[in-house]
Amino acid sequence: MYAIALIGSGNLAWHLGQALYQSGNTITEVFSQHWENAQQLATILGNADPKTDLDFSQSKAQIFFLAVKDDVLERVIAALHLPNHAILAHTSGTQPLEIIQKQSISPAVFYPLQTFTKAKQVNFAEIPICIEATDEQTYQTLEQIAQSISTQIDRLGSKQRQVLHLAAVFSCNFSNFLLTISKEILEKEKLSFDLLKPLVNETIAKAYTISPAKAQTGPAKRGDNQIIQKHLTLLEEMQIDENWQEIYKQMSEAIMNFYTDSKH
Amino acid sequence: MYAIALIGSGNLAWHLGQALYQSGNTITEVFSQHWENAQQLATILGNADPKTDLDFSQSKAQIFFLAVKDDVLERVIAALHLPNHAILAHTSGTQPLEIIQKQSISPAVFYPLQTFTKAKQVNFAEIPICIEATDEQTYQTLEQIAQSISTQIDRLGSKQRQVLHLAAVFSCNFSNFLLTISKEILEKEKLSFDLLKPLVNETIAKAYTISPAKAQTGPAKRGDNQIIQKHLTLLEEMQIDENWQEIYKQMSEAIMNFYTDSKH
Repeated sequence: MYAIALIGSGNLAWHLGQALYQSGNTITEVFSQHWENAQQLATILGNADPKTDLDFSQSKAQIFFLAVKDDVLERVIAALHLPNHAILAHTSGTQPLEIIQKQSISPAVFYPLQTFTKAKQVNFAEIPICIEATDEQTYQTLEQIAQSISTQIDRLGSKQRQVLHLAAVFSCNFSNFLLTISKEILEKEKLSFDLLKPLVNETIAKAYTISPAKAQTGPAKRGDNQIIQKHLTLLEEMQIDENWQEIYKQMSEAIMNFYTDSKH
Repeated sequence: MYAIALIGSGNLAWHLGQALYQSGNTITEVFSQHWENAQQLATILGNADPKTDLDFSQSKAQIFFLAVKDDVLERVIAALHLPNHAILAHTSGTQPLEIIQKQSISPAVFYPLQTFTKAKQVNFAEIPICIEATDEQTYQTLEQIAQSISTQIDRLGSKQRQVLHLAAVFSCNFSNFLLTISKEILEKEKLSFDLLKPLVNETIAKAYTISPAKAQTGPAKRGDNQIIQKHLTLLEEMQIDENWQEIYKQMSEAIMNFYTDSKH
């Protein structure tokens, strides 16, 4: 069990903090730019100390998790003062390990691959945690912590983590937006999004069972230009965002290219 | 219980035929252009008659389900001879009811909203069945049949069904292809697609719970151009299909437009 400080109080810090606390670690401090946010999270983590400044030189924490938004990351790192020998781990999918190497002799990355919202509970045990560290002892310490909250730990380098994050943007962020487009289209015709849920569920289940490349169906896969044209006309008539027509065209073209390629 | 003929032996006919047969209906004939296919399906449907010609004028069937691919649909319809008073229902998401109105005095549409693959069992009870008919008696007959195999029946006009199919292309066909892109990107870095499964599952669960528009996360949602540029560079370096870079750009742009719009 470790003494841990959390730098950040957003969605990730909120869930990670609770998982760490519930698995027996001591949370020493919680930093946020906003006092109320720091206090709110610190309170539920066994009355840790809330902080709005970044001077941790007197902290008892052995490990510091940096979980602030990418756009304030640089500013927070620049202002950070840690005790000697403390491990500092950032939690970003895209930032390289190097961004924190001046702040700690044991810089590391501890990236839980999940989408977090405060209002929604997540089961941390199922979340893959990707770890990167420059020295073996730091890696092992973070691996121990990861094992106390999750069952899937992966050691990834910065490049691999970036590619993983990129893949997640496609399969999660973009897929989610396709659901938004679907829902908006349905609502224009007073149809419920619920109608599509069994189909969406089966699509995901099938992609897992037989691989998404083998599971592909639809007009573009069949090369059915008649239906594709009908759909483009329909999108035009519905007077929706022009970007969505472009997405329809781009996706259809990409699917047709992929399946005319002899490999698939 | 009804006497039913199946025109087609593909993925949909395969699953629909079994659901109809198992719920107590009699399957009289199974048509396929290929004798073996007709025979294979006819056999498991209580030894129905396999057929490779479209003369059903002597058939005992009360209802004919037309479940052939869209690209042979016109040819099959033109050659079709049915008994007087038989109901003919096509099963296409995009074709209007009118395409079969010359073949039957009771033309209808019976559209199960699902993706079918022979090798994968589906639970028909959870599949929404969308029905359209021009007369009330035909509608009620088809509704009865639908109720014997599913718990969700919806009466939709041709326009609504087309929009539903269009929405399904976005949220299922295109989402599935995004999973393919993800998997290919991961494999270039020797990473397993399994890593992403918890994140994909949570993305879908969250979209259902709080709506996809509210659940959106990622660089485009945050307007994080630095990460977007990094990802585009990474895609460039990976030398993958150029269409995928275009998809990344289009999707990101569409997400940014959607969220700068004051409504969301």
